Formats: sequence, C-alpha cells, structure tokens
Amino acid sequence: MTASSTSDHDAEQTLSLDQALDMPRIAIESITPDVEGGRFAAKAVVHQQSSISAVVFSDGHDQLAVDLVWRRFPDAHWQRTPMEELGNDHWSADLTTHLAGRVVFAIEAWIDLYGTFHYELQKKHQAGVSVDLELREGAALIRDSAAQAAAHHVERMNQLVADLDSRAGNDQLLALMLDPGTVTTMRTAGLRGHLTRSPVQALEVERQLAQFASWYELFPRSVTDDPQRHGTFADVAGRLPEISQMGFDVLYFPPIHPIGSTHRKGRNNSLVAEAGDPGSPYAIGSAEGGHEAIHPELGSLDEFLELVSKARDHGLEIALDFAIQCSPDHPWITEHPGWFSWRPDGSIRHAENPPKKYEDIVNVDFYADDAIPDLWLALRDAVKGWAGHGVTLFRVDNPHTKPLPFWEWLIADIRRDYPDTIFLAEAFTRPAMMARLGKLGFSQSYTYFTWRNTKDELQSYFAELNTSPWRDCYRPNFFVNTPDINPRFLHESGRAGFLIRAALATMGSGLWGMYSGFEIAEAAPVPGKEEYLDSEKYQIRPRDYQAEGNIVAEITRLNLIRRQNPALQTHLGFQAYNAWNDNIFYFGKRTEDLSNFILIAISLDPHHPQEAHFDLPLWEFGLPDDASMHGEDLMNGHTWIWHGKTQWMRIDPAYQPFGIWRLRTVEGT
Amino acid sequence: MTASSTSDHDAEQTLSLDQALDMPRIAIESITPDVEGGRFAAKAVVHQQSSISAVVFSDGHDQLAVDLVWRRFPDAHWQRTPMEELGNDHWSADLTTHLAGRVVFAIEAWIDLYGTFHYELQKKHQAGVSVDLELREGAALIRDSAAQAAAHHVERMNQLVADLDSRAGNDQLLALMLDPGTVTTMRTAGLRGHLTRSPVQALEVERQLAQFASWYELFPRSVTDDPQRHGTFADVAGRLPEISQMGFDVLYFPPIHPIGSTHRKGRNNSLVAEAGDPGSPYAIGSAEGGHEAIHPELGSLDEFLELVSKARDHGLEIALDFAIQCSPDHPWITEHPGWFSWRPDGSIRHAENPPKKYEDIVNVDFYADDAIPDLWLALRDAVKGWAGHGVTLFRVDNPHTKPLPFWEWLIADIRRDYPDTIFLAEAFTRPAMMARLGKLGFSQSYTYFTWRNTKDELQSYFAELNTSPWRDCYRPNFFVNTPDINPRFLHESGRAGFLIRAALATMGSGLWGMYSGFEIAEAAPVPGKEEYLDSEKYQIRPRDYQAEGNIVAEITRLNLIRRQNPALQTHLGFQAYNAWNDNIFYFGKRTEDLSNFILIAISLDPHHPQEAHFDLPLWEFGLPDDASMHGEDLMNGHTWIWHGKTQWMRIDPAYQPFGIWRLRTVEGT
Repeated sequence: MTASSTSDHDAEQTLSLDQALDMPRIAIESITPDVEGGRFAAKAVVHQQSSISAVVFSDGHDQLAVDLVWRRFPDAHWQRTPMEELGNDHWSADLTTHLAGRVVFAIEAWIDLYGTFHYELQKKHQAGVSVDLELREGAALIRDSAAQAAAHHVERMNQLVADLDSRAGNDQLLALMLDPGTVTTMRTAGLRGHLTRSPVQALEVERQLAQFASWYELFPRSVTDDPQRHGTFADVAGRLPEISQMGFDVLYFPPIHPIGSTHRKGRNNSLVAEAGDPGSPYAIGSAEGGHEAIHPELGSLDEFLELVSKARDHGLEIALDFAIQCSPDHPWITEHPGWFSWRPDGSIRHAENPPKKYEDIVNVDFYADDAIPDLWLALRDAVKGWAGHGVTLFRVDNPHTKPLPFWEWLIADIRRDYPDTIFLAEAFTRPAMMARLGKLGFSQSYTYFTWRNTKDELQSYFAELNTSPWRDCYRPNFFVNTPDINPRFLHESGRAGFLIRAALATMGSGLWGMYSGFEIAEAAPVPGKEEYLDSEKYQIRPRDYQAEGNIVAEITRLNLIRRQNPALQTHLGFQAYNAWNDNIFYFGKRTEDLSNFILIAISLDPHHPQEAHFDLPLWEFGLPDDASMHGEDLMNGHTWIWHGKTQWMRIDPAYQPFGIWRLRTVEGT
Repeated sequence: MTASSTSDHDAEQTLSLDQALDMPRIAIESITPDVEGGRFAAKAVVHQQSSISAVVFSDGHDQLAVDLVWRRFPDAHWQRTPMEELGNDHWSADLTTHLAGRVVFAIEAWIDLYGTFHYELQKKHQAGVSVDLELREGAALIRDSAAQAAAHHVERMNQLVADLDSRAGNDQLLALMLDPGTVTTMRTAGLRGHLTRSPVQALEVERQLAQFASWYELFPRSVTDDPQRHGTFADVAGRLPEISQMGFDVLYFPPIHPIGSTHRKGRNNSLVAEAGDPGSPYAIGSAEGGHEAIHPELGSLDEFLELVSKARDHGLEIALDFAIQCSPDHPWITEHPGWFSWRPDGSIRHAENPPKKYEDIVNVDFYADDAIPDLWLALRDAVKGWAGHGVTLFRVDNPHTKPLPFWEWLIADIRRDYPDTIFLAEAFTRPAMMARLGKLGFSQSYTYFTWRNTKDELQSYFAELNTSPWRDCYRPNFFVNTPDINPRFLHESGRAGFLIRAALATMGSGLWGMYSGFEIAEAAPVPGKEEYLDSEKYQIRPRDYQAEGNIVAEITRLNLIRRQNPALQTHLGFQAYNAWNDNIFYFGKRTEDLSNFILIAISLDPHHPQEAHFDLPLWEFGLPDDASMHGEDLMNGHTWIWHGKTQWMRIDPAYQPFGIWRLRTVEGT
C-alpha cells in the first residue's frame, strides 16, 4: 500500500469504499525540500548535508517508525536512514551525497508494532501491573514476524526466535522483550503495520562550483594591445595567470562562433557597420559555420582545446555562451528552412518588439513541423559537442524566450552524459519564469541584483532568496555588471561605488560575476542609458588592467575571504541585523552550526563617511547582552574583543566602504 | 495536450525527448485556493465568492488567454469564465455557486494567436509602418480558425469570414481586424495555440451554516426540574423558545443512545456506579440497542422526530454526537466479535493509556479482517439513518483516533445523498491532524481556543487561522466550554470572565459554541482540574437558567450583532491593531470590500479597569491620520464621530469587559 495510490482518487469522483480501504492509513505530508509537490527536483550540492523533513502521523496512539529511503539515479539500490522525531509529528533525516547527479528519495512510514508493545510493556512493568498477557502477545509478535520475514531478514529473526525459545519463565522473557537489541531487531526486521511510502521526490545534486564560484567575463577578441588586431585564444591564455590570481574560478566568453555579415551592427549599435567592424558575436552563423563552429579570427578548435586545458592548469573552467538565435547567414537557414517561421512574402519572421525590428537576428521556431525533433536534436548536439570539448559551464542567453520543456529535456539529457555541467540562465524577466528556469534544471541564474541599491531593496531581496520557493530552486549569480548592463549606480559613484557593489556581490551570494572593465571602474554610459559607451559588443576594446584606481587588490582579497569562509560560499544563511543608519546595510552570513559566522557592513553611500550604532548578534550564540566576543577584520587581519551587544561603526568610502568581520565566541578563539 | 501529462514524468526517470515534446508549453502553477496540490478540496460556502487564482506564463512575448473552467459535481456541463491578468503572470477569476456540493475546476491557458496579432497590428499601424503583410497574415488566421472551428463555433466563425470576404481594400480590412468584436470572436472561437489545462482541483461548497452558526449544547436528560426525574425530548422541546431567542442556530446533544451498565461510571467519574446513576452517554450500547437506537428514557423515535421538527420551527437544527466506541453491552460485541481486537485470554483489547485502563469502553478495530467492509458500512449506515431522520449536523467524538480514510469516505458518502450535512470534528490533538481532518471533509473543528488566554496567544492564533493552510481547510468552532473542558480562566474570573470569553468566541469566529451552564457562569471545578465538579456526564443536573448574574442578555445581543454583520460570520477577515495595553486585545473583522468593518476591543482582565490609546485604522480606508470616521457601539446603538488616528479607551469589567464598534466612512453614513 503506497501513498501514491491516493493520486488515483481523482478530484472529479466521489471516493469509493474500495478506494478508501486501499488508501494509506498513515499520512505523510509537507515533505521538504519540495519544489511544486515533487514535480521538480530541489537543488543540492555534493558533500553538503540536505535536511529532509516530513510531517507523518496516523490515527490513534500507536508509535510510528519513519525511514528516509533514497538512491542515486540511476543506481538500483535504495539506501535507508531512520528519521528522527522532532515533535508535533515532524520527522527529519540528513542526506549527503558525494557524487553529482540526481538523487531520488521517498519517506516510508509504518506502525511500529513492537515499539508500541515495548512502550506499553515497560510502562506496565514499571507500574507493577501484571504483564503475563503482554508477554504472550510479545512472543506471538516475534514469531509472526519471523514467519513473515523478508529473505534478507530471516536469519536475524530466526536468531531472535531461538533466543526466545531458550528463555525460561516470565522474568527471562521480560528481560528479552525489554532489551534494546530486541527493539532494534524488530524495528528493522519485524512486522510493519500499515506500511506507507510517499511519492518519490528528487534532489538535483551538483558539484560545488554550481553554488560557489566567481565568474570573470571577457571578450576574447579584445585581449589585444591594438584595436586593429583581433585577439585570439592564445592572447587569452596570456591573461589566465592574472585572472586566476584575482581568485576567479570561471572564465566566461560571449559567443565564439562565426559572426554573420548581413545586417551586421556597427559601433554603438549603429544599423550599418563600417568596414572592419567586427559585428556582434550574438549574430551567430556565417558561411564558416554555426553553433558548432569557431570564429576563425579567434583561432582553431585545437587552439580552443589548448586554452581549455591551460585554463584548468590555472584552476579556471571555461564557460561558453549558448545563444540560440541565428544571423541571416547561419547555415541552418538554407539547410533547414523548416526550422524557421516564414511570412507570406517569403521572408523570415524576425524577433520584434513592434515597431522595433532586430534584423540582424532571426529566431528558430521550436514547434514548426519540420523542427520536431530535428531542431531540438541539433541544438542538443551543439551543446553536447562543446561539452565533449571540455566545456563544463554554459551561460544560456535569454532562456525565457525558448520553450520550458526544451530546457528541461536538454539539461537532463546533457547531464546524463556530463553530470558536472553547469547551466547559468541569463533570464531578466518576471519572477515566476526566473524561478521556473531554476526548477527545471538551470544550476544558477542572473538576478535583479544590479537594480537593488537601497538598504531596503537589498535586505528584502537577500531575504527573499533565502525563503521558499527560491531557496530550493534558484541559485543567484550576482553579476555586478555585464556587457548589457552598465548599472546607473556606478555612473557617478567613482571607485568607492565599485567597491560597494563588489562587496555586496561577493558577500551576498556564493556566486558572483564580473565583466572585464569593472576592475578598472569603467562606467561611461551611452548618455541616459544603462549601456556602455563604445560597447565591446560591437567593437574591439583593449584595456590597461593596471590603470590607476583599479580595485584588483580588493577583488583578490574578497575572493580569498570567500574561499576561506564556508558561510560565504552560498547565498543561504543570510540574516539582516540592526544598524541605525539607512545608508549602512548590515547583515550576517552563517553556517548552520554557527562555526563560521561573518558580519558584513556595507555603506551604500560612495561619497560620505557614515556612522552607526549596531547590534552584535550575541543572542545567536545564546549569549547575554553584556557578553564579549572575538572579532577579526578579514580585510586586514586585525583582531579585538567586542564587549556588549551595542557597538558603533564608522565607514569612510574614501578608504574602504565596507567592513567584513568574523565573529567567534571568546572560548572558540 | 494537458498539464496533467507532466505527471507522467516520474522523478525516477530522465525526461525523454518524446515526453518533452508532449509537455505543455505554457506553465500553470500556484493555483489557489489549494490544499496539498489539489489532493483535497478547499472549503467554500454557497453564495460566497471564491477567488481562484493562478500563475500562468510561457516563453517569449506572445499574449496568453486564460479561462477558469468549472462544473458542479456531478453535472457534466463545464462552465467557463475568462480570468483577469493582475500583473507578474498572476491571473484571477471569481467563482460563486448557490448550491451545496462539490465544485471541480481547472485552469485553461493558450497562446492568444489573434490577440498577439492584433496587438502588433495596432502598434505598427499607430507607428505608421506598412501593415500589408500583416493583413494577409490576419486574414489567413481567421480563415484557418474557421476551417478548424469546433461545431458550436462554426456559425460565428463563418460570419466573420463572410465579413472578411465583403471587405474591399486594406483600409476596410484593417478596420475589421482592429475591431474589438473581431478580437472577442477570435478569443472565443479562434485557433488556440498550445492549449493547456491544469489538473482538476475541487472546492467543497457547503451551506452557510457550516461557516456561520452558534451552537448550544445540552444533556437532554438534565432538562428536568428534579434530578430524580430523567429529562425527555418533550422536556427539551419546552426549552426551544429560550434557546432560539438567545440567537442559537444549532442544538447539540451528547449521545442519545442506550447506555451500557457493565462497568458503568458513577458520579464524578467514580469506577462504581450507585443505584440510579444514569451512566455516561458515551458508554454507548445496551440490550436496548446501539448506535441506531434511542435511550428509552429520553423518548421514542417518534418523539425525537417531533423534536427535530419543532426545533426547525424555532430556527434550530439538531446536532447529534457520533462516538464510535462501544460499551461492553453493545450488541455488536456478540453479533460481530470480529469487529474487535481480542487478547490471548479471550478479553477485548480496551482503549488504554498505560497503566490506566478505560474499562467501560471498547474500541472497534477498523482493519480487523472481519471489519472490512462490514464495520465501515455499519457505521456509515448508522450516520445515514440519523441523516434520514432529519439530523443535519454531526459532532464527531475523537475523530483523530479513527482512520483518516474512513472519514474521507464516510463524509463523502453521506454528502452524496445529504449534501447539507455538516460534520464537526471533536479533535484536540496535534496541529497536523487537526488540519488534515478539515482537509478530508470535516466542515469545522474544535480548536485550541479554550487554552488561548493572553493577548499574544489570541492574536497569533486568530492570525494563524487566517493563514494558509488553515484558511483553506479548517473552520474553527470556538466552544467557550464543553462537558470535558471547564477552562481554568473561568474558575476565578467571575461573571466578567464569562463575558470576556463569550465576546472572544462570538467575535473571533463565525462558529462558536456553548455548553449549557455557561450562561449562568457555572465554573466549579474538580479541584485542580479543568473538569466540572458533579459533571453532567455522570449525573442529571437541572439548572435555573434565570439565576442571578446570568449573561443571557449579553449572549443574545452578541448573537444578534453577529447576524447583522457579515464580517462576524467567519473567522476570516481578522486583523490585529495596536492598543498600547497588553491586557486589551484589539482587532478588526472586515468584509473584503470593507463595507462591513467591525472593531473589537476585549479586556482580558476580568478584575480591573484597563485603559489604552489605540489606532483607528484609517489607513485601511486610504484615509490620512487626521481624518474623521463614524463610530457606532453595537452593544447599545450609540453613535459618534472619531477624529484622527490615535484614540483612547477605558474598559471596566464591572460594567462590560469589551467594546464592539462598527466603523464607517463619514460619507457612508
């Protein structure tokens, strides 16, 4: 009898007696983590404990036993962990796996017949009531259990029966039946009353890099000392040491495929390109190939493979951009016209936002007759090809404009062969879609972070990401800037503003990202817009990364602090604390056991010093308001003792607009 | 293609391409009201609007159309209401039904092909862009829709095509295609892209008495002027006018069945009854019959039927107690020994809480081999028999100690024939079970109310009952006392305490109940216990209901106020407001449109006057802090104008420990 049989009871029908008799007697509900009632997998990472909980109860007063049963997909073998009762029918067990891949789990519950018997026997014995009848019942239960034991329990049960047979007199029988060993044997191998199993739910276990990583984005063609000379993979290899030394883990490139020439965009997004303009790498496809090919000016496939390998030597993995749109020169347009949507005049339907038109790009039509299933397979094969070339991360361009079932299938399909593959959703859209992309398999996502600037905005956004459904399905990657987003806050903030945003991103989430130029405080916008002037999307832009005022040292330190402190390796564990100044965003990041407890105070004002009294969260450690704790400034290593709950801070953006302090109990130091 | 096909995608399998292609392109999620993902019906009452909402979205920028489809079970006919888009992918529609019974509903969504076309056509036309191509596409869409129209849409679509054929030139075509009538026709009868339907969910629509009722409980045998003379149904008939005049709707009797004599309990729960002791009516069954029979001293079946009829004449419905346990003399024990659990010595297993035993009662064993299905049917038939005798409400004794599937089946089964039947769960147990009983069909439930005494406790309990999952599955019946619960608060509170608890119950929920004796402030406990001294459970207790200090007038007034104010006819619509005194619990009850807005201030101190400044919730009406509003004291009819947000009150328990004020805008008066 399983709980899933309840789903046979359609809301449209009155329950029949036969159905009712078939339904589980034990209720299993409120299983967590849960994403839409088990429709999607909840997120987890290797080596990290997931707490699985459920509410389990039945009628009456019998004792229940509850197990977490689970297996790593596609293993056939189910493992089993007894769950602990926490009170009010809540049960919990921890689950940790050490390999990436899908884990499925269910909750099994049954009436613990012997446990209930044992409890009553003990009570009566202690109360001095005669238990003769109980001993007869207990013996019968043990014998019945042996007679009906599953094959792998027969030996153990037969031993217990032999022990039972060897006992003479009620005192000996009582001793055997009260023995904890008997209770354990009977819980494991004895009869289970009204055994019930919940529907199966899933955890998508990814490697740690899915949750904790620092991304660095650059246009390979700009890695050059001359805007007339197209940068190459070999040039990029030359930058690996400095990117690695800054503490980044992922090196991400916009599309590296051949760029179309028809309707090519010129500098600053002009409609007509001039001779020598390289075009937008997002206009994918030319006579030289499409999504599986490399733009010849960047180098050959071999040179790409060499870069991937060298990057690994520097602790960096390469992320590629998966952008499904095609330039009008993409080979698919002539080879597979049926994958596109055609208008009555024989033209292809363009992406448009009327009356605007984006004529350098056309979109495929996923549900066109000819596109099923060939287009889906071709796209899958493009990704699979790059995965085969050692690419382990994909940043997916605008996934919210492609069908949801496509992503759910593609990600699962790629992960079957390459379980370590990480997908980052570049979705900037409404919340339900952002969450859904996480639910269906994206490891992580772009966020609203760049548009959250005030203390109020940041506090509620960080808190929301720590709350269901977000916490179970969505890992935020806080990019401080992108080629598409030159945040307004930075236009006038100066160097201090870049430090503020870097601190917010690095401390706020285990995942953060930076598009090159940020480290030298580049901020010149197209006037009035959140776009970069002379955007690298349309031209080659060499830079001097050691320019005066750069924040390379601070980024390096922030990334180092992240590596040294587990509390900073996730967006979870956030808690806002009081600082009596609306310009100072003050919060904690804590591991569950509080062994790593970081306090972060960030002034949101890049121009003036700010001061505030603030709460030292002594209560989190169960300490009184006059207790002392050990503090350490993680930016410079200074240490001190804090006395009492109320403290004071002053933050001067001219020096450093934030403080990062590790908090420890005095005994713990 | 329906959303329910997604459930074919087992968490244990990797999604195949065929499955992905079969999955809905449009996501429908977060449907409310929802009880465990549609596993159970959400609660509703007739004539009352239920707001159905969902989050619906798809990839890309096409417009969606969303309908609520629903039918009254078991009607075959589905009705359809377009849902309104509220922003951020939230859609909503209201649903009201006027008959009790189950309503099933689903959400249908599709890509609104013509709506999307119309939006783009209009934009381009307004921008002065040529739309020649668009007009050809629009015409094709209309013709395709007509060609593929469902039978009941063919005529309407053919008319549109005829209109299209009659238009000469692009200007006329444009006018037709922009016409709102064309949009409506195409939304209703045109092609629907990627039509998706959510799984079916249910609403259990009950009559209003399930949500708004005042219950009065008495022991019929105590309706007598002499403890030696057993009260009868005819005696009870004599009390109907006064109970009705107090404003009660339901008259509830503890079990009226024959009472066993074996192990009969004596006065004050003594283990041995004296001659003449009537025994507990919960020890059901004797040679005179079991759950289908009437205790002969109360009267005959005809006399019972007469009482039911007379009660109706007074606006009262009779509620009976359904208590499944049996006295040792119950006929079932000899007629159906297989329905009970027997021990090795030939005795029946008693209900026990070791080392205590309850020897006057034995419980049936629902899952004994012989009990399936005969016991289940016998119990169902017992309830059905009383329903056939005109009993419309059942108070179910300890439902949490009987199997959940039994109740789910029994309630559905009874309601199929008697859809007006109301079930009250007498469950005092842990929260998950309390909620589950509501989910599976109980109309209402006993609560923790009697143990919530402080402002903090009351405020959080009332708020919790207004929050999911409680608000969707659980209607609280606030009994101020029961034969089993003589609340500690009342032991020393005097008359004012009874008024306090009456005000809390009547204002807090649409459902409240009172066990007779409360109106004359009876409170003598078994020393140190929450039990009544000389409990009526074990003896006959005549009373003088006009005794000095009675609160009959206040109860009458409170019930009248409830009848006159829809905001008080449910526990929903609660909102706590600020009163700066921890002894004054101050809150609002509001209809959704705020047309009925009641402020309630209850002092929790029965001994001393209490004073407080309090907030007049002007902001709820969008009014500034210095606005004026109209106030009316509903206990005495006085009216006044309140000026400004901060007000002051003084409550003297010697006079009346609460205030109930109707708040109206000045224009509204």
